[in-house]
Amino acid sequence: MMPAEDAALFESLRRVATASLAGVMFKMGLTNQWVRGPMPIKPEFPRIVGRAFTLRFIPLREGVPGAMIKKLPVNRDAVECMPAGCVAIADSRGTMDAATFGDIVVARLAKRGVTGIVTDGAVRDLHGLLAIGLPIWTSGITAPPPATRMLLAGWQQPIGCGGVAVFPDDLVVADADGVVVVPSGLAAEVAKRGLDQERLDAWQMEQVARGVALSELAPLPKQPESIS
Amino acid sequence: MMPAEDAALFESLRRVATASLAGVMFKMGLTNQWVRGPMPIKPEFPRIVGRAFTLRFIPLREGVPGAMIKKLPVNRDAVECMPAGCVAIADSRGTMDAATFGDIVVARLAKRGVTGIVTDGAVRDLHGLLAIGLPIWTSGITAPPPATRMLLAGWQQPIGCGGVAVFPDDLVVADADGVVVVPSGLAAEVAKRGLDQERLDAWQMEQVARGVALSELAPLPKQPESIS
Amino acid sequence: MMPAEDAALFESLRRVATASLAGVMFKMGLTNQWVRGPMPIKPEFPRIVGRAFTLRFIPLREGVPGAMIKKLPVNRDAVECMPAGCVAIADSRGTMDAATFGDIVVARLAKRGVTGIVTDGAVRDLHGLLAIGLPIWTSGITAPPPATRMLLAGWQQPIGCGGVAVFPDDLVVADADGVVVVPSGLAAEVAKRGLDQERLDAWQMEQVARGVALSELAPLPKQPESIS
Amino acid sequence: MMPAEDAALFESLRRVATASLAGVMFKMGLTNQWVRGPMPIKPEFPRIVGRAFTLRFIPLREGVPGAMIKKLPVNRDAVECMPAGCVAIADSRGTMDAATFGDIVVARLAKRGVTGIVTDGAVRDLHGLLAIGLPIWTSGITAPPPATRMLLAGWQQPIGCGGVAVFPDDLVVADADGVVVVPSGLAAEVAKRGLDQERLDAWQMEQVARGVALSELAPLPKQPESIS
Amino acid sequence: MMPAEDAALFESLRRVATASLAGVMFKMGLTNQWVRGPMPIKPEFPRIVGRAFTLRFIPLREGVPGAMIKKLPVNRDAVECMPAGCVAIADSRGTMDAATFGDIVVARLAKRGVTGIVTDGAVRDLHGLLAIGLPIWTSGITAPPPATRMLLAGWQQPIGCGGVAVFPDDLVVADADGVVVVPSGLAAEVAKRGLDQERLDAWQMEQVARGVALSELAPLPKQPESIS
Amino acid sequence: MMPAEDAALFESLRRVATASLAGVMFKMGLTNQWVRGPMPIKPEFPRIVGRAFTLRFIPLREGVPGAMIKKLPVNRDAVECMPAGCVAIADSRGTMDAATFGDIVVARLAKRGVTGIVTDGAVRDLHGLLAIGLPIWTSGITAPPPATRMLLAGWQQPIGCGGVAVFPDDLVVADADGVVVVPSGLAAEVAKRGLDQERLDAWQMEQVARGVALSELAPLPKQPESIS
Repeated sequence: MMPAEDAALFESLRRVATASLAGVMFKMGLTNQWVRGPMPIKPEFPRIVGRAFTLRFIPLREGVPGAMIKKLPVNRDAVECMPAGCVAIADSRGTMDAATFGDIVVARLAKRGVTGIVTDGAVRDLHGLLAIGLPIWTSGITAPPPATRMLLAGWQQPIGCGGVAVFPDDLVVADADGVVVVPSGLAAEVAKRGLDQERLDAWQMEQVARGVALSELAPLPKQPESIS
Repeated sequence: MMPAEDAALFESLRRVATASLAGVMFKMGLTNQWVRGPMPIKPEFPRIVGRAFTLRFIPLREGVPGAMIKKLPVNRDAVECMPAGCVAIADSRGTMDAATFGDIVVARLAKRGVTGIVTDGAVRDLHGLLAIGLPIWTSGITAPPPATRMLLAGWQQPIGCGGVAVFPDDLVVADADGVVVVPSGLAAEVAKRGLDQERLDAWQMEQVARGVALSELAPLPKQPESIS
Repeated sequence: MMPAEDAALFESLRRVATASLAGVMFKMGLTNQWVRGPMPIKPEFPRIVGRAFTLRFIPLREGVPGAMIKKLPVNRDAVECMPAGCVAIADSRGTMDAATFGDIVVARLAKRGVTGIVTDGAVRDLHGLLAIGLPIWTSGITAPPPATRMLLAGWQQPIGCGGVAVFPDDLVVADADGVVVVPSGLAAEVAKRGLDQERLDAWQMEQVARGVALSELAPLPKQPESIS
Repeated sequence: MMPAEDAALFESLRRVATASLAGVMFKMGLTNQWVRGPMPIKPEFPRIVGRAFTLRFIPLREGVPGAMIKKLPVNRDAVECMPAGCVAIADSRGTMDAATFGDIVVARLAKRGVTGIVTDGAVRDLHGLLAIGLPIWTSGITAPPPATRMLLAGWQQPIGCGGVAVFPDDLVVADADGVVVVPSGLAAEVAKRGLDQERLDAWQMEQVARGVALSELAPLPKQPESIS
Repeated sequence: MMPAEDAALFESLRRVATASLAGVMFKMGLTNQWVRGPMPIKPEFPRIVGRAFTLRFIPLREGVPGAMIKKLPVNRDAVECMPAGCVAIADSRGTMDAATFGDIVVARLAKRGVTGIVTDGAVRDLHGLLAIGLPIWTSGITAPPPATRMLLAGWQQPIGCGGVAVFPDDLVVADADGVVVVPSGLAAEVAKRGLDQERLDAWQMEQVARGVALSELAPLPKQPESIS
Repeated sequence: MMPAEDAALFESLRRVATASLAGVMFKMGLTNQWVRGPMPIKPEFPRIVGRAFTLRFIPLREGVPGAMIKKLPVNRDAVECMPAGCVAIADSRGTMDAATFGDIVVARLAKRGVTGIVTDGAVRDLHGLLAIGLPIWTSGITAPPPATRMLLAGWQQPIGCGGVAVFPDDLVVADADGVVVVPSGLAAEVAKRGLDQERLDAWQMEQVARGVALSELAPLPKQPESIS
């Protein structure tokens, strides 16, 4: 079960758009937290929040010699290690010629209570995935299975995904604008600032709806704190 | 209010597909009028027509020294200069890591009566944009705000957008096949030829529906003028 | 009319996902059969199967001298050569600046009973194409007509499409995961193995639905043959 | 032996830079004659001129069934068909993962009196190629042999190379600025205009050397014809 | 003549590698000052330093209507505006299909005392350019002239070049590692820190030459200031 | 000191071109052993052979929280772990905006007796690197230091480099045609077949020099074994 602190943090983050998170993290000096490429396979997915469970893939080596293959992890073992509530996020090195995830693995991940899936590669069995309904962000759709182009090299290591560093237990937030990664140690602060930003945006939208010009919106007449 | 001449021109152009406009302009010697990249965020948008209001962005420079920043334009000033009926078209240099437009600016543009938005970069707040409903053509969706990657360098200057030159007051026409730019001085001629092309296409479709082979369609038995 | 043997083969292939076909062909030593790029213009298209009718395009040459132009084929002649039940598959060299197919040609292809269309380039007249309803897989949508950027160089020759060799009469299978090419001489074997794979996948999905872990699924308790 | 007419044409073209040829062809309405990608493996090669001998490659198909393989041409047969004085120009589809030409084939081409080689793919055995000395324009250097990624599909067909249409017997001219293709039927006119352009450029360079401003160079005080 | 202050600044910057400048600017919060793409046409060029004279190009528009063409600047006018000692730096939008600079313009720029040329596009007349000897950084070599693909839209405006913002009078420094842009207002501080970095690097190289391990080099036993 | 077995293996591999190694490995079923991108910074480097010492980089994360940074390796520690005779090969994820290696680290690697360096990213301090003389294969040259864009995530792990899987202790062979990776367990067999291939190539070259047509070279009149 999720610790209470996490539950509150997740609840806050679920109320903040990735657009706002990217903005507030940039102001905090985190300039590279938006994952390039992955988009939801269905734009109607709700916003998801979860701790990163990282997967690291490398290109295919045919005939991996015996000694090495024993040292290499196996995809199904990684799957069975994922805790409920995590987001499986894969460093697929932008591989579009083979799927990182297919319907059978995704069905199992859904059973295990995984919150969502992110890959900078591709997925397959699109209709099957939509039927399962687990939220998935991917850079493309493809037919060939993973074993035709890639090997799992490890999990819960620091990875790169879509040009962004992801450490195990970072917070992954994903919605219709894509995926952002929130560093674990800064997540509470990011969530707080994100909520402030959402309030500010809501106030601005309201002003715009009344016909106020953008030039009159800034500098702001009130601090966002005093708006709510 | 729009001059009567413009109203007639716009009315004509709204009846001509970008596919037909690209074809007739090519025959007139205009070989580079289709904007590479931007597609509608919702394919059901109606065809739009408007005069180009150009925006020019350059990459981010942190710490722009004081003297220069005063010379630089500000996004909100550009927004408040746009006349009703224009199409805001941005030279975003293909930047996908930050949005050129987000929901607050788009809401204001809608209020001002802008007809549509085109960028060869990205937009953010997808659900918000869809709710506003202003027609938008973009090369991608992203989360980070403009200020994280780009600066507005000017507006109503000649720009490049998706590999095409755009001059202020060019006609921008956009539909489900993308965006074409019609030079202002040639727009009346382009519209006339475009309508002819539409009539010809309609006649061809009718012939095909009757089972006529393509080889019998050309050379054409009648001039398109005599068909209508 | 289709020979009985073909009818049975097509019927089998229509029951096998491209994802499964890509997997079984890889195991048979065919490592490069998934066409990179083309995706369906509507994900709800049914899976299609047909013999490849290949089209080969080259870049535009203005002012092709008279002698040569007579040797060059003409698009409409190619169209009128296509038999019912084939899949028109075009080597468009990834050209996105001009459409390989537009609504008039597609309407005629539908009339001729063509099963579907694949291009590693682009198509135009999106709304028209959706209205016709013929299944189309393409790498993009564009406005300019073919003649602005490309020439038809021949048909029913070996081509490359999306990085894959396609020979006339290869089997083309396409669904929501994209397009695979099945060599004609191996198609019966591929279909048989594909059906086995489908049975295995169905059994695995069933096990997963019951909560079985992936690590218990492999090695498989039963051969797929004994499952059905 | 080369016909006298060709000898004079070749002699003229060897005196015209590809930069000038690209310029004069553009003015003649040929907008797409510069081959994107291929550069000389040694910038000191002299300018070469020759009739195009086209080669067409497609991606690898493993296990091409017997019936088809007999219909496919073989690389060595193509080589033995090339006449002295031609330029071998290959449609390699931008393949960088395997070489289109290696040192043994190139040594044989040199023996046969071929003038030069152009590929929009890659070559291998760089040191060997430099030792042979036959002028080569390529988009890259690689190690794997052709058979690992590509099949020869035919020769002396119309092809695309680096985004340009090439017909058999087109004139290929290559120098340190790359490769241009001159349509056979227009070559005499292109050569004549090219020589005029060279004379004009020489006159302009002379004026610049004397310190004349560019704004005083145009409009030109004299016609280039009267300069020589 | 150059002001004394500039002379000292330029002298300092000429002693600092672009590698060091990129490093010290990053530490000062300037994260995007290295120009992606342009490399010297001859690696032996000395390091150059000069104030940016910016040029802005847009894609070609055929048949620019009369009224507009009068508003458009002309290339030769821009050339004749460049002061001695500047670096001409062009926003060529990555255009490789046409040259931004050719030998006649470059010869004139050399006559005017321009220090060097940078483009994120291409140049032509390679042998001529090497003969002139003016230092040039470019993303490629090509044959077609500028007028085939681009229009000059203005000069001494803020531009983007290789993904970097360049303002008129920024300092441009270029050497074998490429091109960096130093904001005018920060140049004195950047030069000072750059010289410190060079002293530190020299000390480290000396230590390494003596066989000291990298792990013993840091933290540094002495401040770089105390080394010189 | 190197074991005697390794010395003989290395000696054999140094006599086999990467072009031959890529060919023989492909025939053995290893289809993906040529590293895309890295080329020598000086084509005259001798062929190098060494055991892979892998380095793995991920994108920059600013403000890595304290707890994590302690778990992260440090570049200088990796350097000091490299044994004499190895080839340092870096998974730089194609990063061109920052150098993976600069002159100080390379000077230290040369001191430690490292045989060569391979990166699918970039290097900086080009003149310094050439002066040191250690053979380097890289995808580009850049100015910014590593810390501006990347973090070292580990060493002696399985990595991907230029689209190829590299395991610690794989054999890395590099020459003017680029870099190939030879699996450790298959290296003796690959070396043997490579030497056979070299003998066959030498025989073919000799035949070509005598004027034999390629069509007469195959099928071969003699086995390569009987040639030497």
